[in-house]
Amino acid sequence: VFQAPTGTRDFYPAELSRLRYVQNAWRTTSINHGFDEIDGPTFEHLDLYTVKSGEGIISELFSFERFGGEKTFALRPEFTPTLARMYASKAASLPKPTKWFWMQNCYRAERPQRGRLREFCQWNCDIIGDDSAAADAEVIACCVGALEGLGLTPAKTTLHPGGVLSFEGDVVVRVNDRRVTEALLKSAKVAEQDIGIAFALLDKKSKISPTEFAKECERISLDLPRFERACGAAIACIFHSRTRSYVTDTAQETLRELGVDLTLLYNLFDALASLGITQWCLFDPAIARGLAYYTGMVFEVHEASGAERAIAGGGRYDKLIEMFGGPPTPAVGFGMGDVVLSLVLQDKGLLPKDEEMGAKLGLNPDALVISNGSAEADGAVAGVVAELRRAGLHARRSYKTTKNIGKLIQDAAKMRARYCVILEGAEKATVKDMGTQGQEACGIGELAGRIARR
Amino acid sequence: VFQAPTGTRDFYPAELSRLRYVQNAWRTTSINHGFDEIDGPTFEHLDLYTVKSGEGIISELFSFERFGGEKTFALRPEFTPTLARMYASKAASLPKPTKWFWMQNCYRAERPQRGRLREFCQWNCDIIGDDSAAADAEVIACCVGALEGLGLTPAKTTLHPGGVLSFEGDVVVRVNDRRVTEALLKSAKVAEQDIGIAFALLDKKSKISPTEFAKECERISLDLPRFERACGAAIACIFHSRTRSYVTDTAQETLRELGVDLTLLYNLFDALASLGITQWCLFDPAIARGLAYYTGMVFEVHEASGAERAIAGGGRYDKLIEMFGGPPTPAVGFGMGDVVLSLVLQDKGLLPKDEEMGAKLGLNPDALVISNGSAEADGAVAGVVAELRRAGLHARRSYKTTKNIGKLIQDAAKMRARYCVILEGAEKATVKDMGTQGQEACGIGELAGRIARR
Repeated sequence: VFQAPTGTRDFYPAELSRLRYVQNAWRTTSINHGFDEIDGPTFEHLDLYTVKSGEGIISELFSFERFGGEKTFALRPEFTPTLARMYASKAASLPKPTKWFWMQNCYRAERPQRGRLREFCQWNCDIIGDDSAAADAEVIACCVGALEGLGLTPAKTTLHPGGVLSFEGDVVVRVNDRRVTEALLKSAKVAEQDIGIAFALLDKKSKISPTEFAKECERISLDLPRFERACGAAIACIFHSRTRSYVTDTAQETLRELGVDLTLLYNLFDALASLGITQWCLFDPAIARGLAYYTGMVFEVHEASGAERAIAGGGRYDKLIEMFGGPPTPAVGFGMGDVVLSLVLQDKGLLPKDEEMGAKLGLNPDALVISNGSAEADGAVAGVVAELRRAGLHARRSYKTTKNIGKLIQDAAKMRARYCVILEGAEKATVKDMGTQGQEACGIGELAGRIARR
Repeated sequence: VFQAPTGTRDFYPAELSRLRYVQNAWRTTSINHGFDEIDGPTFEHLDLYTVKSGEGIISELFSFERFGGEKTFALRPEFTPTLARMYASKAASLPKPTKWFWMQNCYRAERPQRGRLREFCQWNCDIIGDDSAAADAEVIACCVGALEGLGLTPAKTTLHPGGVLSFEGDVVVRVNDRRVTEALLKSAKVAEQDIGIAFALLDKKSKISPTEFAKECERISLDLPRFERACGAAIACIFHSRTRSYVTDTAQETLRELGVDLTLLYNLFDALASLGITQWCLFDPAIARGLAYYTGMVFEVHEASGAERAIAGGGRYDKLIEMFGGPPTPAVGFGMGDVVLSLVLQDKGLLPKDEEMGAKLGLNPDALVISNGSAEADGAVAGVVAELRRAGLHARRSYKTTKNIGKLIQDAAKMRARYCVILEGAEKATVKDMGTQGQEACGIGELAGRIARR
């Protein structure tokens, strides 16, 4: 007996419907937000991944080679390197900005865990050639548009003393700017050359013990109380500015004293406000994003209770196109995977039930064609079905041998067909409207016109 | 500078539109013909491929391994082994017949040639659990449905003496039954144990010289003149039966004399006739299909002039589900790749032009939003666009700095937007219908309702 490889999935029709439902939301949102779809190879030359992420990435890749003389390949772990390569090779002829979306599978050679598989579907949206806060906000709005389209709502946030936030509801978009975190880290006495280490440390904070975290902070002279005070003040300032409530003098005073300027964040939150999505977004200075290539705004979407891994993440990467041989080009984008998102939707009861999927995805038949049991009608079924299909209709036939018309009509109801066509011989049929339950006689030649989509 | 691996493709928006156009035809046809979509992993355990095709297949696969203890994997060269595995593991709970379609990429580690790439998109339709000629005809009808949906027409066929056929028009569906070819081979003195070799020989006939072919025939005592006489007679019988014209006594006599029974083909062509697709189909005893697992009907779709590789191919494989651990289950299906099909469509001028693609794929914007150049209007663009998108509309904005409204309206025409919305300040807009060229004033709050999809 054969099984699918660990960490991959078999999608039978019901499972695939759920994926297609999510993908339809992604696709519709991308198109409505003015992104054009692109695609690239499933595997790339291995060095396309090492140039951006270093040799360390190799252990996380499915890599292989073919024909002695050729380079080594790897299944894509993400799409951004391909996007950067594609943009770089045609930069001069592409519009400014270029807005691309992409929706395919990615592969990671890790041990599978909840929310993390070896093969998963990923959705990316990127704006390339626009360095404005408006572009930052536009990709976040597109991300939020898909969440909203899938029925998720923004979590209601409460600010507690010390800049601590709590949430009630579905999801939170945690927004940051790496340059602000850098200023906060510097205000906490981290030296210029240790900023990279500090970012990596923030990124793994939740995965290590507080003691270990404190020890690591000490190693780079990160003054933790000072850093937390600065972060708390920044959170309070942005939170109150967002809710247009009163900003305490203390918070502003603290930041002034520490030399931290929040202008970048105020600009970003102004842009988010003009797109009407402030209620989804929160400033969170702890969002660093592991990948070293982010240069400015970064964000992650989380289930509000923090129960799952990030649903989506992204940010600005203004140096990457150049690294792949293109001209210096600002860029911003995000990725969202199907696995965590589907877990969240499932938990919250937001995935349509199996019996509702047909209507959601346009898969319900226009007609089920059955025979009244006479030899003439039996012989006409295949031809009538073929004729309806040729007319662009979704027609099914019954493959059952039963002559019980009542049972067959029940099958039409089960498959949510709009009509049940009962052939009464070689020339005549009864058309039953499965919605109204009304029925009328119809010549076989007129069937296609009669049940054509309204 | 980085490049895509040899034999793979970068799909910029225009190229991807052409692929999506083909895929849409495939998808719509599959659904209308009552197939349900499934999907499986991009890579499988290597032995899933060797069990069906032998160790020889390994040199044609991209294979790799991960983590010492695990088995070796391979990128799928085709979907049928995955389908058989999936069916076998749930056979008891699946409907009879089960009708599945699949549409994803496959991978072949060969040197790329015209019509043959290392990564390509493949469409499969299969009916599992039905051994009738009606099921054979139904999968052929689905294949033909897609070709017809893409604008291809059946080639007009002329029968010349000796069973030679010539064609005028787009495509031909060459249909055969391996059991009939077996009877024809036996009538030409091929021994039972050499039948497999004979099939392989027929399959590679066009790739080797006539001398070499004759030599190979001799090796298995294949009486070539006798075989060709039998084939010619069979072609004549089926051709005339198809066109309901007079069947020569000579042809029938020849077959009787040689002990070849065409009942299977008459049944198949009756089933094709009841689905109204006889004009697409021709009997061709030379269609053997390389893959050893076909057990009955086999077919290939070819461009009529024979200029390209096969557009599609398939057949009946009644032993395969059992080979993958399932119960004995008849099955029939086909695969169609995007590469040859796209070459044929391109050559015949059947791919929509770039500027027509938006309408074909539903990608044209509902509105382009521009500013009249005032500061108030400039400041309102992002918010109006966001509001339209939130209402489910495809809204774009101009990123240009020009204040020339005429030029911006031209941009709306170029992107085939239904409306151009000119903001006249923070509250008011002019809505220009790009079809009628009519325009009217509209409050910003009413815009979404005004231009909602009809």
